Amino acid sequence: MVKIQVKGVIPPMITPFKENGDVDYDAHRHNMELWNESELGGYLVLGSNSEAAYLTENEKIEMLKVTVKKARKGRIILAGTGMESTRETISLTRKAADAGADAALILTPFYYSDKMNDEALITFFSEVADNVTIPVLIYNVTKFTHINISARAVETLSRHPNIIGMKDSSGNIPQLVTFKAVAAEGFNLIVGTASAWYPALTLGVRAGIMALANITPTDCAQVQNAYERGDYEEACRIYERLFPVNTAITATYGVAGLKHAANLLGYKGGSVRSPLLSVNEKEKSEIRGILQRAELLA
Amino acid sequence: MVKIQVKGVIPPMITPFKENGDVDYDAHRHNMELWNESELGGYLVLGSNSEAAYLTENEKIEMLKVTVKKARKGRIILAGTGMESTRETISLTRKAADAGADAALILTPFYYSDKMNDEALITFFSEVADNVTIPVLIYNVTKFTHINISARAVETLSRHPNIIGMKDSSGNIPQLVTFKAVAAEGFNLIVGTASAWYPALTLGVRAGIMALANITPTDCAQVQNAYERGDYEEACRIYERLFPVNTAITATYGVAGLKHAANLLGYKGGSVRSPLLSVNEKEKSEIRGILQRAELLA
Amino acid sequence: MVKIQVKGVIPPMITPFKENGDVDYDAHRHNMELWNESELGGYLVLGSNSEAAYLTENEKIEMLKVTVKKARKGRIILAGTGMESTRETISLTRKAADAGADAALILTPFYYSDKMNDEALITFFSEVADNVTIPVLIYNVTKFTHINISARAVETLSRHPNIIGMKDSSGNIPQLVTFKAVAAEGFNLIVGTASAWYPALTLGVRAGIMALANITPTDCAQVQNAYERGDYEEACRIYERLFPVNTAITATYGVAGLKHAANLLGYKGGSVRSPLLSVNEKEKSEIRGILQRAELLA
Amino acid sequence: MVKIQVKGVIPPMITPFKENGDVDYDAHRHNMELWNESELGGYLVLGSNSEAAYLTENEKIEMLKVTVKKARKGRIILAGTGMESTRETISLTRKAADAGADAALILTPFYYSDKMNDEALITFFSEVADNVTIPVLIYNVTKFTHINISARAVETLSRHPNIIGMKDSSGNIPQLVTFKAVAAEGFNLIVGTASAWYPALTLGVRAGIMALANITPTDCAQVQNAYERGDYEEACRIYERLFPVNTAITATYGVAGLKHAANLLGYKGGSVRSPLLSVNEKEKSEIRGILQRAELLA
Repeated sequence: MVKIQVKGVIPPMITPFKENGDVDYDAHRHNMELWNESELGGYLVLGSNSEAAYLTENEKIEMLKVTVKKARKGRIILAGTGMESTRETISLTRKAADAGADAALILTPFYYSDKMNDEALITFFSEVADNVTIPVLIYNVTKFTHINISARAVETLSRHPNIIGMKDSSGNIPQLVTFKAVAAEGFNLIVGTASAWYPALTLGVRAGIMALANITPTDCAQVQNAYERGDYEEACRIYERLFPVNTAITATYGVAGLKHAANLLGYKGGSVRSPLLSVNEKEKSEIRGILQRAELLA
Repeated sequence: MVKIQVKGVIPPMITPFKENGDVDYDAHRHNMELWNESELGGYLVLGSNSEAAYLTENEKIEMLKVTVKKARKGRIILAGTGMESTRETISLTRKAADAGADAALILTPFYYSDKMNDEALITFFSEVADNVTIPVLIYNVTKFTHINISARAVETLSRHPNIIGMKDSSGNIPQLVTFKAVAAEGFNLIVGTASAWYPALTLGVRAGIMALANITPTDCAQVQNAYERGDYEEACRIYERLFPVNTAITATYGVAGLKHAANLLGYKGGSVRSPLLSVNEKEKSEIRGILQRAELLA
Repeated sequence: MVKIQVKGVIPPMITPFKENGDVDYDAHRHNMELWNESELGGYLVLGSNSEAAYLTENEKIEMLKVTVKKARKGRIILAGTGMESTRETISLTRKAADAGADAALILTPFYYSDKMNDEALITFFSEVADNVTIPVLIYNVTKFTHINISARAVETLSRHPNIIGMKDSSGNIPQLVTFKAVAAEGFNLIVGTASAWYPALTLGVRAGIMALANITPTDCAQVQNAYERGDYEEACRIYERLFPVNTAITATYGVAGLKHAANLLGYKGGSVRSPLLSVNEKEKSEIRGILQRAELLA
Repeated sequence: MVKIQVKGVIPPMITPFKENGDVDYDAHRHNMELWNESELGGYLVLGSNSEAAYLTENEKIEMLKVTVKKARKGRIILAGTGMESTRETISLTRKAADAGADAALILTPFYYSDKMNDEALITFFSEVADNVTIPVLIYNVTKFTHINISARAVETLSRHPNIIGMKDSSGNIPQLVTFKAVAAEGFNLIVGTASAWYPALTLGVRAGIMALANITPTDCAQVQNAYERGDYEEACRIYERLFPVNTAITATYGVAGLKHAANLLGYKGGSVRSPLLSVNEKEKSEIRGILQRAELLA
């Protein structure tokens, strides 16, 4: 059984909110047009940077539908459909399939983190993959879930015919090598952060889902282009130039910082949803400086 | 402004599931009858031991309604209504108020844990408390959220007229003393685990919401009774006798273990919902032994 | 075989340094005179608050000798003699015995923390206890060692004829109950921080080795006195009054803060040894305020 | 001021012990002969894999002297001379310089880990570097010290004329990029684990101090050789072949496993020193299998 190949840079798209907290679908359409013009491998709707934890099911499906309608043909559309319970995950994944998602990116359940051992995770992902019509990708994001899937679980799950890959957002390169060593052939190992993008390419990874691609998709793509044409120095140079921006919009300022950077770069970031707090004036000024030093802003 | 006083032992009630995974409301009614006959201070529906993370909104409200209908008069009914977003938390808390909850126990939001600083948590709880009609209790449960609310935040929030207390499930006694030192008078500090029940009583705490109260409510109440009548040795003796049972049903075997113990003791625990796994035969035998050594089972 | 009983409050004595970094033995003699006048159960030389990690073997033995010479008769003298290797621990413990220590407080080795499993720790403490002439106490201080000894290891080691107790500095009260449940009769469970002193007394603990006893030994002793004569409210009141001072001199400002507080209260704290940094002027002012609010300073 | 350039693969040499626990200097001489025949950039005596935490000062200096005497000319000799106190670190570094060390690798002090902030670490390393005659390298090994030096501290320290580089053993590649971005030109960033060797090379790192180089120095060197002659695929292939061996001798079995693997491959590993435990028969068999699968053993 041949698994779909996921390749290229994919933005885990932000969800713009109006000042009153409602989803601003028009702003999302605006952003989609910009992303459509960029060199991207696809789109991820409802990832961690979308504030999916704050969206209702209706909002999730609507965001997906707008994305499907606006997406450039031929690009893969991934939807984050992980919920805490197996049954809700299956239910939401089916709805996402009906709404046009090509594949589902499914978070490790994490509330009862100390009980999410290998057996629980293998059972969970297998049950979900058995009961949905679109392919499944595992989403390992320890920073938010405080769970780190084991190599043993990846080894088993990578052999499931409907589990086609994993986004690993740890930035842990030795761990990526470990996963690569045990995963079945054709399993898509996707790096989940721009902080590990160039090193991941040197290890054979071919796709990256990275917050940074929301605001500078072309630069992210050029890292890969340069690498693949053999210009390693150029690839590494772009990667290192972008690196501090990535630190800013993920670790230092988080989604609020990402959205403010988006605003500065022509996207419509909009507000964050409460309880997230907006960046303050001092932080805004710091973000501007970081974008300037990375040559993304004059 | 005088705040309601929360006193006594309150079970964070389990949600029994049928083998097909549906909520077994009849089993809950059966359990309510047993709890009604026990000496309890009230009921908590939709706490961590209820697998609330796995329940739909409809199931949550229905569990609450059944509880309200069956509850012994005069006992407080708490409902866990915390969601990740402020707006969803307000919405669910209002629905819980309409369904008859006396107060809401609200989890610290935690998905973006590194952004949930004092300012974010103070803003979140204040906004929620300002926008609901029933009193609010903070729910601090680091084991599941990987967030630990600060004394500074508690100091501020304890002065909000509609925030009446906090369940601290850390079992961290020095932290409890710190919270006590900064909290406004009349703020209800509630210990959230039987592992700290007797020490908490010696420090002036008067209420405990503890998993153990699901299966041995009377013993839990007797720790407090003995303490309050000055029989400290007896209080400590019961506490120490129950201690290993509490370790078993929280740390070692978790909710699945709690439900199996419930089955052994005349309650209807039912199944856990996937991805939680049931206890296996070896674990069942261990649980039986632990209950026997604690003199809860012949 | 009957084990020595350790009882009362014991200060883990600070080591005063001159400005040039040398040990100031005269300052220690001065402090000893003050401690001799206070109600204490004994003395601990070379605990964590002594900066033992910064002392040479010669300095360690000299500090012990000065202590032995100045100590009030009938009070137990404990010496911290834990080293990373078994052979060095045995060697230093023997020298401490020769210099007059009554018992040795021995740290869990911790450099290769992930290899210090139950088997390694049980073997280590057994080998040491078998090869020294004075009794051994286990020293569990996770904050510094990042090791937390298991209940299973304590269960085994508490049955060794020459291991008479354990100082647990975690402040983790449920853990103390767990240790108490498994330890052999007569094993001395000693609480290692004033933050857990009163709760530990209510659980039957009878000794405390606490940084706070360096600077306010009598108050620490009065918590126990009040508790043992049945005046629990008074015991709890003193404990709660001292609590913020303990937080200051352990967590917030550490040994440098403890030494500055000592200076303010008539002891000779002296300098800390580099790389520890002295408290700055702002911190000095905060410490003064904390001592005043605790009624230790006018 | 031009700093010495550190280049190539350097083994953090094991210290062989006799069965009675004494250092087996003859075994070390034997190993030195094998390392001399291999392509290596130098030698590190007294690193974490040497069990330096278990060596007396005399043993440390003797190990260094034997190394100096046996070392192949032209290869750099590094000595681990970090102690907890600044004065002891200076003292030992001076003795190491007298005994022939070319540079000192100095551990971040860590006992009072919560006080080892940027200011403390900057002061410590600056004071040491100011007071010794040989160049200093920072040793950042979070796994053992539970301290992780900050980019800000590295930025400052890399500008000290006598601090020439850092061994970072975290394996954290994004962190390495961060350090590279802030460090002064000419500062030697050295990767401290074979698990990150190839990715580090792709980022411009030119030296690696890695446990694995004790037992398969030539393969480690060939990763670098292949990379530097532009044969990236071959470099990555060797790296991936060795990867599971590295996991075994560091994470899974630790120094005891490394020593057993050394025995199997013609080196004299000798025993570990107590409290480290030797590998058992089952582990020995697993290690043999891992070496065979990596084509290091027939």
